[in-house]
Amino acid sequence: MTLAVRYLAARALDTSPVDTVEPGPGQVELAPAFVGICGTDLHIFHGDMDTRVRTPAVLGHEMSGRVVRVGPGVEGWAPGDAVTVMPLRWDDTCPACNAGHQHICQHLDFIGIDSPGAMQQRWTVPASTLVRLPEFLPLDRAALVEPTAVAVHDVGRAAVAEGEKVVVVGGGPVGILIALVARAAGAEVRVVELSAHRRLLAEESGLATWDPADTDVPALVRDWTGDAGADVAFEVSGAAAGVDTAVEVLGVRGRLCLVAIHPRPREINLHRFFWRELTLVGARLYDRTDFEKAVTLVADGTIPADRLISKVVPLTEAPSAFEALEGGGDVMKILIDCTDDTQGAAV
Amino acid sequence: MTLAVRYLAARALDTSPVDTVEPGPGQVELAPAFVGICGTDLHIFHGDMDTRVRTPAVLGHEMSGRVVRVGPGVEGWAPGDAVTVMPLRWDDTCPACNAGHQHICQHLDFIGIDSPGAMQQRWTVPASTLVRLPEFLPLDRAALVEPTAVAVHDVGRAAVAEGEKVVVVGGGPVGILIALVARAAGAEVRVVELSAHRRLLAEESGLATWDPADTDVPALVRDWTGDAGADVAFEVSGAAAGVDTAVEVLGVRGRLCLVAIHPRPREINLHRFFWRELTLVGARLYDRTDFEKAVTLVADGTIPADRLISKVVPLTEAPSAFEALEGGGDVMKILIDCTDDTQGAAV
Repeated sequence: MTLAVRYLAARALDTSPVDTVEPGPGQVELAPAFVGICGTDLHIFHGDMDTRVRTPAVLGHEMSGRVVRVGPGVEGWAPGDAVTVMPLRWDDTCPACNAGHQHICQHLDFIGIDSPGAMQQRWTVPASTLVRLPEFLPLDRAALVEPTAVAVHDVGRAAVAEGEKVVVVGGGPVGILIALVARAAGAEVRVVELSAHRRLLAEESGLATWDPADTDVPALVRDWTGDAGADVAFEVSGAAAGVDTAVEVLGVRGRLCLVAIHPRPREINLHRFFWRELTLVGARLYDRTDFEKAVTLVADGTIPADRLISKVVPLTEAPSAFEALEGGGDVMKILIDCTDDTQGAAV
Repeated sequence: MTLAVRYLAARALDTSPVDTVEPGPGQVELAPAFVGICGTDLHIFHGDMDTRVRTPAVLGHEMSGRVVRVGPGVEGWAPGDAVTVMPLRWDDTCPACNAGHQHICQHLDFIGIDSPGAMQQRWTVPASTLVRLPEFLPLDRAALVEPTAVAVHDVGRAAVAEGEKVVVVGGGPVGILIALVARAAGAEVRVVELSAHRRLLAEESGLATWDPADTDVPALVRDWTGDAGADVAFEVSGAAAGVDTAVEVLGVRGRLCLVAIHPRPREINLHRFFWRELTLVGARLYDRTDFEKAVTLVADGTIPADRLISKVVPLTEAPSAFEALEGGGDVMKILIDCTDDTQGAAV
């Protein structure tokens, strides 16, 4: 048995013992160390994904940990290896896979949503999902590799180039990570964020911010860019107003990278897309290259992971941590610590 | 004096004498032969562009004709040369021009909207706007070069490649031209169009069509593409339902090229953009390369211009031709013949 954070129904989580899974051929049993709570986990918690998630569901896909046991036929991995997981399983037969886009496989199994996730003391996954972590990288920081891989993918989809001017609309964890990755790519970046706490955190990481509640962001962008408009905008807010801002700040041939999930259709100023020949690019998840780049960026300190981790709580306190995040407030990234011995050792 | 088709106010056109303009330095006086009526001309006629158009306004920007006189300093052009005009004047100083996108200059003068157009017997334009026509190309067909340049630009913006599957939503003149240009680029094309007359015209040009009123277009696309979805969709309908169809038919990493003008914001299924990593590309006008390619496509018969020209009317009948087009009906492209001697010779 192993302790696991389980989603039961809308706004109902528990921490309960679940069966461990013997690693089969090609599989590896891990001991998760730290697991981040992601916006998607919150969507699940709210009940927004009940048509997709089979309950009880063990959550978690932003993780770090160590290999405990390897199943038959697994090569290159040994107990004790520090790893993170790229939580995707694709069918390799659908048109998306055939076109080389396995990460958006038409029958994708996203581990932690469609199958059991990492918020437990023992977790069995395909060895093919493992990504090696440098031994010197503390495992709490390494839990930020997965959201950093999202940011790397987004910056790549937007093709951010050195010297470009980039506006990130929404300064939550993914927005901040995008801003940091874009800056590392040589861009000048502004983060648009309503929360004073999040703006402060961004500024402590050396990012310039704007508060959309008391400034005219498009006017600021015109000043900043000599009336040209921004080269790239990232919509990470999930809000209708955020979409409008992202469209409005772009210059001729500007690219809008759509990162946030908008479950319902949004009104878009298509005339602006025509007039300025804008491009809107959808971005989802990551591929292995993104993940490996993310490991480097977290390991070399480009991503100040320590600063972004607001709090670390034991498995048993995960349910209340979800409630804290739901309330917004002054938190950025909360990690679940799956290693706490006082929780009862895994068997 | 020269006879000209003038827009006076919403739904009010006349054909009246206007002053000719002596060609100044760098300018050329042309005798327009044929001028097509474009969707934009209809928008002006409806009064939709009254904030932009200064009345009385001579309309027309899809033209063919011959050089009559050249102004001081003009080299390379002589009276009698067959030409069309790329009706753009840019300021060469704005950020768009500095970035090499002169055709979407932030202070663009679109000749025929922002300054006097081609629906007249004499027309003075900068020599820099001239594009040479082959002598063997009949001038009526050559009037289709400008809308063909739009189609070439759109197909280029969507980066249509050989073997790709392309859905064109809207089978009016520009939609048909896009379909033909995409097919010439090696794509397989389907045209979605409500009007039976336009579908027939498309089919006579060898294009397969679907009637969205009595078929489930996304289901047809799934069958056609083995459940993959289309590689590219062009939204040329201007309708909300057309936008939805264009989004829905696309496969993973599909590109939606936005061609139609949507004056008001439209609801877009952004979740689909995220889920399938779609791209939306705005496309506006053309550059000189597009225009030169368009001359070739019209001249070599890739564009069956004869078939797309529904009717040719003299200058004096232009006002009633606008009304006929406004009523929809069984017309595709109507040309104004500016050469009819019975209209009174230009002085």
